[in-house]
Amino acid sequence: MAVQTRLNGLDLGGLQTIVAGWQSDPAKRQTVWRTRVEWQDGFGNTFQSRSHAPVLVDEPTSLGGTDSAANPAEVLLGALGTCLSIGYALNAAARGIELKHLALDLEGDIDLGVFGGLVEEGNAGYSDIRVRVQVQSDAPREALEALHEHVVRTSPILNTVARPVNVTSEVVVSDPSAASR
Amino acid sequence: MAVQTRLNGLDLGGLQTIVAGWQSDPAKRQTVWRTRVEWQDGFGNTFQSRSHAPVLVDEPTSLGGTDSAANPAEVLLGALGTCLSIGYALNAAARGIELKHLALDLEGDIDLGVFGGLVEEGNAGYSDIRVRVQVQSDAPREALEALHEHVVRTSPILNTVARPVNVTSEVVVSDPSAASR
Repeated sequence: MAVQTRLNGLDLGGLQTIVAGWQSDPAKRQTVWRTRVEWQDGFGNTFQSRSHAPVLVDEPTSLGGTDSAANPAEVLLGALGTCLSIGYALNAAARGIELKHLALDLEGDIDLGVFGGLVEEGNAGYSDIRVRVQVQSDAPREALEALHEHVVRTSPILNTVARPVNVTSEVVVSDPSAASR
Repeated sequence: MAVQTRLNGLDLGGLQTIVAGWQSDPAKRQTVWRTRVEWQDGFGNTFQSRSHAPVLVDEPTSLGGTDSAANPAEVLLGALGTCLSIGYALNAAARGIELKHLALDLEGDIDLGVFGGLVEEGNAGYSDIRVRVQVQSDAPREALEALHEHVVRTSPILNTVARPVNVTSEVVVSDPSAASR
């Protein structure tokens, strides 16, 4: 019997090799991710990682932007939802579950009072985020529910959002009258 | 003397009207943001908010993807960095500070041991994120440092990452042999 080597568009052997590499050398599991943000004008910005095309981010006109793109709150939900989807594809493949269709709807609540300078105290960020995963598969419902539980528990971005992360920052001021950049 | 009505590409009067609306009706500050993720194949996904074009997200080949776009960890940094940049543009304008140039470099650390199924316990997400803001402005250094402190304290996405958010999820399983979707 032939061993199935591709499932959900993933090369199972290649994935096993990656994880085996992490197992033999745990330092390889320690990853650093980067992006660079360039302010354009108003609320228009791009972010760029590695050699990928810059991604535009703006604010809706209701918040004073030009609505040329999604805003950071929506992009954060995009990061969360795509991480969960990737976890689904990966862990389904590892369990022999074929996904026929997968879509996620995410929504969350932000009180803009702190951002807008109306209240001093309180949480400026998302208080609650709700995720609804829609999956089509021939696998038993119990297997898909177990898959869901595993994906949620092990998602890097869900855990980033659900846990407190240590964020440090610094500002470097350069004199505009100094040498051209 | 003419009152300056535009700064950093922003309409100050328009922004004041938005915040005054929140002041008179606090319910308007309560915002809900949404996105929809569609799984394509392998680790390829898009997320889409409102009428904006879908944004592609993938994984690098080193993680088993096809590297067609930034990955969720990079997109999360993009959400954080663009939120901070928007906060800079807004609060600088409100303080009469003209920004000549603004760029942010973000990086963060993720141990992929939990995601890869190598360790049961531990944090699957970012442990630390570092932000370096480079700003060019004629404003005094002290004013820019005070601006930075304010932006960091009031950023919706920085607070989302730095604080624990209540994330709830559900999975809806549909039978692929049922009616067409």
